[in-house]
Amino acid sequence: MYTLYDWTIIDDDGQAVLENGNRLLIGNGYMAKRGTVEEADPPCMPAIILGGVYDKHGDRWREPVNAPDPLFTVLSLDGIPFTLAGENLSTHTQSLNFRYGVYSRKTTWNTKDAHLTVSTERFASMDDIHLLCMKYTVSADAPVSPRVEIHINTDVCDLNGPHLGDFRFEVKGQTRTLICETLEKKIPIALANGIEGGSLSSIIEENRSSYLLDLDGSNPVELFVFGTIWTGLDADDPLENVEKSVLRAKKAGWDCLLAEHKAKWDEIWRIGDVVIKGDDYAQRALRYSLYHLHIIAPRHKRRCGNFSIPARGLSGQTYKGAVFWDTEMFMAPYFLATEPELVAQFIRYRIETLPGARRKAVEYGLRGAFFAWESQETGDDACTDFNVTDVFTGRPVRTYFRDKQVHISADIVLAVKRYVDATGDFSILKEGGLELILEVARFYLSSIYYSPERKRYEALDVVGPDEYHERVNNNAFTNRMILMVFETALTTISLLKEKDAIFIEALMAKLNFSEDFAFMQAVMPCFYVPQPNEQGVIEQFDGYFRLEDCSLDVVRSRLKDPKEYWGGGNGVASTTRIIKQADVVTMLALFGDEYSTFVKKANLAFYEPRTEHGSSLSACMYALLACETGGSDWAYPFFIKNAEMDIAGKGKHFAGLVYIGGTHPAANGGAWLTAIHGFCGFSLKNNKIQVTPRLPSHWQEVMFRVLLPDGLHEVTVTRDRWDEKVRGQNV
Amino acid sequence: MYTLYDWTIIDDDGQAVLENGNRLLIGNGYMAKRGTVEEADPPCMPAIILGGVYDKHGDRWREPVNAPDPLFTVLSLDGIPFTLAGENLSTHTQSLNFRYGVYSRKTTWNTKDAHLTVSTERFASMDDIHLLCMKYTVSADAPVSPRVEIHINTDVCDLNGPHLGDFRFEVKGQTRTLICETLEKKIPIALANGIEGGSLSSIIEENRSSYLLDLDGSNPVELFVFGTIWTGLDADDPLENVEKSVLRAKKAGWDCLLAEHKAKWDEIWRIGDVVIKGDDYAQRALRYSLYHLHIIAPRHKRRCGNFSIPARGLSGQTYKGAVFWDTEMFMAPYFLATEPELVAQFIRYRIETLPGARRKAVEYGLRGAFFAWESQETGDDACTDFNVTDVFTGRPVRTYFRDKQVHISADIVLAVKRYVDATGDFSILKEGGLELILEVARFYLSSIYYSPERKRYEALDVVGPDEYHERVNNNAFTNRMILMVFETALTTISLLKEKDAIFIEALMAKLNFSEDFAFMQAVMPCFYVPQPNEQGVIEQFDGYFRLEDCSLDVVRSRLKDPKEYWGGGNGVASTTRIIKQADVVTMLALFGDEYSTFVKKANLAFYEPRTEHGSSLSACMYALLACETGGSDWAYPFFIKNAEMDIAGKGKHFAGLVYIGGTHPAANGGAWLTAIHGFCGFSLKNNKIQVTPRLPSHWQEVMFRVLLPDGLHEVTVTRDRWDEKVRGQNV
Repeated sequence: MYTLYDWTIIDDDGQAVLENGNRLLIGNGYMAKRGTVEEADPPCMPAIILGGVYDKHGDRWREPVNAPDPLFTVLSLDGIPFTLAGENLSTHTQSLNFRYGVYSRKTTWNTKDAHLTVSTERFASMDDIHLLCMKYTVSADAPVSPRVEIHINTDVCDLNGPHLGDFRFEVKGQTRTLICETLEKKIPIALANGIEGGSLSSIIEENRSSYLLDLDGSNPVELFVFGTIWTGLDADDPLENVEKSVLRAKKAGWDCLLAEHKAKWDEIWRIGDVVIKGDDYAQRALRYSLYHLHIIAPRHKRRCGNFSIPARGLSGQTYKGAVFWDTEMFMAPYFLATEPELVAQFIRYRIETLPGARRKAVEYGLRGAFFAWESQETGDDACTDFNVTDVFTGRPVRTYFRDKQVHISADIVLAVKRYVDATGDFSILKEGGLELILEVARFYLSSIYYSPERKRYEALDVVGPDEYHERVNNNAFTNRMILMVFETALTTISLLKEKDAIFIEALMAKLNFSEDFAFMQAVMPCFYVPQPNEQGVIEQFDGYFRLEDCSLDVVRSRLKDPKEYWGGGNGVASTTRIIKQADVVTMLALFGDEYSTFVKKANLAFYEPRTEHGSSLSACMYALLACETGGSDWAYPFFIKNAEMDIAGKGKHFAGLVYIGGTHPAANGGAWLTAIHGFCGFSLKNNKIQVTPRLPSHWQEVMFRVLLPDGLHEVTVTRDRWDEKVRGQNV
Repeated sequence: MYTLYDWTIIDDDGQAVLENGNRLLIGNGYMAKRGTVEEADPPCMPAIILGGVYDKHGDRWREPVNAPDPLFTVLSLDGIPFTLAGENLSTHTQSLNFRYGVYSRKTTWNTKDAHLTVSTERFASMDDIHLLCMKYTVSADAPVSPRVEIHINTDVCDLNGPHLGDFRFEVKGQTRTLICETLEKKIPIALANGIEGGSLSSIIEENRSSYLLDLDGSNPVELFVFGTIWTGLDADDPLENVEKSVLRAKKAGWDCLLAEHKAKWDEIWRIGDVVIKGDDYAQRALRYSLYHLHIIAPRHKRRCGNFSIPARGLSGQTYKGAVFWDTEMFMAPYFLATEPELVAQFIRYRIETLPGARRKAVEYGLRGAFFAWESQETGDDACTDFNVTDVFTGRPVRTYFRDKQVHISADIVLAVKRYVDATGDFSILKEGGLELILEVARFYLSSIYYSPERKRYEALDVVGPDEYHERVNNNAFTNRMILMVFETALTTISLLKEKDAIFIEALMAKLNFSEDFAFMQAVMPCFYVPQPNEQGVIEQFDGYFRLEDCSLDVVRSRLKDPKEYWGGGNGVASTTRIIKQADVVTMLALFGDEYSTFVKKANLAFYEPRTEHGSSLSACMYALLACETGGSDWAYPFFIKNAEMDIAGKGKHFAGLVYIGGTHPAANGGAWLTAIHGFCGFSLKNNKIQVTPRLPSHWQEVMFRVLLPDGLHEVTVTRDRWDEKVRGQNV
């Protein structure tokens, strides 16, 4: 069972191996290492996921590469390794300090002669993103001579691998190196590890270092292992780099490296921390959520182009390690307030993947930019037409995420618009941002239809956020988002025209956009967005109100298999009003200014009981909207659900037969959104902070910081007032 | 095993009870009695289906009423009934004379003392449609005294029943009556039976007549049972009518009634027979097919309105006893050539159900006439949104026959157009036919969309004839049919305007059609119909060519359960190019004048290997098109498949877990279509017969007759020539 303390989470039984892999994850944006013990074998899903490095094995799903483990260490006695599964296990705890991203484990085994204890600490350096550091301490209460073996373990776990080949090892003293390459694109992956410790009798065997430890029954033995990883995407000669990195690390030593690492974290928390008074659990859970965002934030400059944050962060290979709308919609707001340069990076990643989005549009006979539902490094869609496996037949199920969930393109435009609105930074528009907006507008213009019967333009055959209902017409959310794209295109052109008419003229000419522009202006007044009915409820899509109106329990009772997919052709939810996640409510949360409190309340009351919340993207939208209608206490459980998503580890682990476990950065971002935008009523417009306090009734105060061009602003919100002061200059 | 002789089909083992029920069906358009033995119990699916009488039990499917059996007879000895399942069964044969629609059975049982034989004959009178006649003969080779019990059996088999209640019996001498009523609409159903025979010692017990037969070992005993059925839809006092009918029958006697019945059949065959020289099997199978059309043809005038032919005829309750496009598309051509008044009746049935079609359009937010996919007596759709049951979960599967298979409305218009083209009878247009055409045009006009991107009108989100691919855009067949509706509306208005301008003006005003008319004219030049690609192949719908291209065997090998539905969300065919039945090929067969032989051949070659032919509507279209391209021998097996469909009884018996067995009148009609339109190259335009001989290579000659206003034409087609002579005046 795990326990959450201030800045620390401790698991004292090690039973939930897969959950702990996520729960105790460490990382630095370049890579993340799952919270498994040093000796973990593939069924425990150990992994070091490298952000933005992908590989495809045969006709399997393309997914991120799980690197060999340079910290792999096994303790043994008389040739028998100590493991968590062994009968000689006495006690075991694992923990994570999420103030500084330090993973620890302490395990004691009973041997014939002594109690033998291994204590380790490790971190993925925030200072040198290529560096993993571990302190490995062995102690015993009586003399005993176990053996410790350390090597770069290439026996990694893959969902759809293997992904690496052509392994070449080399050993130089206490340093060993490995160079290998990905199968598909032959990207070199280089690793090294170096070992420091007391005077050790080591035997360098083939590919592994082996040490016999003569424990005297009182003094522990400490080993320090420094692992480094570089790829061909980072440097021309990654092998040279890993060697240099290791030497540098060994020279600096554990204490120094840890201090540099902590200094970076101190700076992160100086800007990004949130302090909640009156609710210790919320405080801890929110900080834990923010931690998970920081360990996957791509702060480093990549040689090969910008990267963004995948939907499961760097916690594994789930969802192909791909970037979804989660980043723009659920994570970007936190970074927009605290590290807007990261949002610019997310946007640059999308600008750089415009060619992929254009290719996808062409694939469907359309024009403009149809962004990938699951975006990897090129922007080509990693999503297949068969994204779920039927539990009854084992056959792939045709799903429509790839071809019909068209709102992704608009979601990206919204992030651009919000970034520009909040920061006033127009440069990104000229560096491809406006081109992106216009290409997205063009995409929708090329896909919409006109109904002569209803005398309006409509968006047909889409999948909205609620994925259980596929191929629907006039999804309120999608239609409003499309209209937002047109509005943003129009206003952005107007705005930039004033600032730089020549640029606009050149861009319109380059994109040959004049005809589309005229058509867009004609479409806008006739573009259909579903409106509230007499009860104030907005129909999620055409015909939704005709669906069976039964309860969540009734739908659940129809399941024949707990792993069944609820959506798709034969799903239990598809033919009912039960929805997977916030849909109309997401629209209302995004476009709140346009709807009355009556409408917001009516839709909350209508849709919430009909929502499975089968996605980490759901709770936060309900909570945000509830806060706007005086329902902060009602919203509180949704906030907690988001904030503790990766603590509790209760998220869905399967969709059909496909493993979908991992961390939930969108929920992490959603927790901040609810706390700050929801409970504090915060918003940012033209570099100005606005706050409307509406804290849950047991909260006393919230302090958060916002980084604006004029410096770091500290905002303190109490039950009935708020205060803002500038704490420091821009960093 | 069954054997097909000239005009007779004999089954000599009685094993295939359900198949024989269809195979040996007798009927007269008003009703049909399944080919089960007299003593058959519900698991054998005995039935007397009344055309156009429906009932709905609770929330189950609405289906045709299976009437009580006035000919129900059981033979017993010492209280033990003789059945086909008894160990004492010696021999059993059943047969059908399909020249005259006479069912026979002969069964011998071993008793302790003798061999006891029952021989029966029965027919559904073509002369008096309310009358069923049976001769029941019992003989033995040694003295024995069995008991025979005859009563009106109310223990009927229903798929979704029971449908009848409030049973009231009455006995008057050797005549007994029953009146009961349907549950939903309280339609009275009256039955009577009367028994004639030698001097019998009878005991009238409660609800049954019981006779002890003293067989002397040489002389058989003959009983004659006359059963009559009238409903409240036929007369105000059906009870009075059944009594009168029985008395009349008893008075006339078996021989006389049989002679009158045969005379009607002689007249039917005088007009409707086809004579094939050089292929005995084809001759027999085709006549057998035509027999099945005649026993369900609604020749009688109904007090309650016109009726048509359901997709499974009157063979049972499959497909809810509903009328599908089968009638207009596959059966009407035969009757158009031989008894055009029947086609007029089919059309009048559709005209009378226009209100239901209008209601259905309104239900979907559209205007005009959206005809029911499964039409019962009111034209409201009997088809549900869940028409298949998933074999793995037992849950209903959402299917789209009802809401998306919009071509049904156009199919009806095509039948009207063909009827008027062939007969020159414009009166039907003024009696509602043109209103129907315009309302169908309006329906499509209200449902189509304009694509600004492609600058054309499109028909989106439909199901074409190939039901395995649901919710497709721009199905070539459907789009061409919609355009045909517009063309027909336009030309029919022009034509009638010349003849009766006032009528047209009044109709346009009544229907308020002027705006639609103008819009229709604007749409026609911009309405999209998919065209052949460079290889000459027409894509069945947008994106069809993107589907997995695998063989029928591969798709079949993916089945996990033989009863699985191939279509729908999770069906094995849905995501592949494998189609259920002719789709593009149907379009080419219907609009052959518009396409080159190259295109026809290309599509035959492309689509045929990809067609499961999982519908009786498929083979005939492939055969027709093949004949047009010189492929009569290639088409021959398809002809045979259609012609022997109800002989072999190999049609699908299940879709998912739903029973779909019964006769296949569309295949019966398809056999004639292939023989006459295909092999003989017959067509009818403005009352003129056109023939292009293209017989299969082993056929010597085909003779068929066509009824035109100037008389009965006899057409003789040989391998290289044809001849036509008028045989008689119009009848």
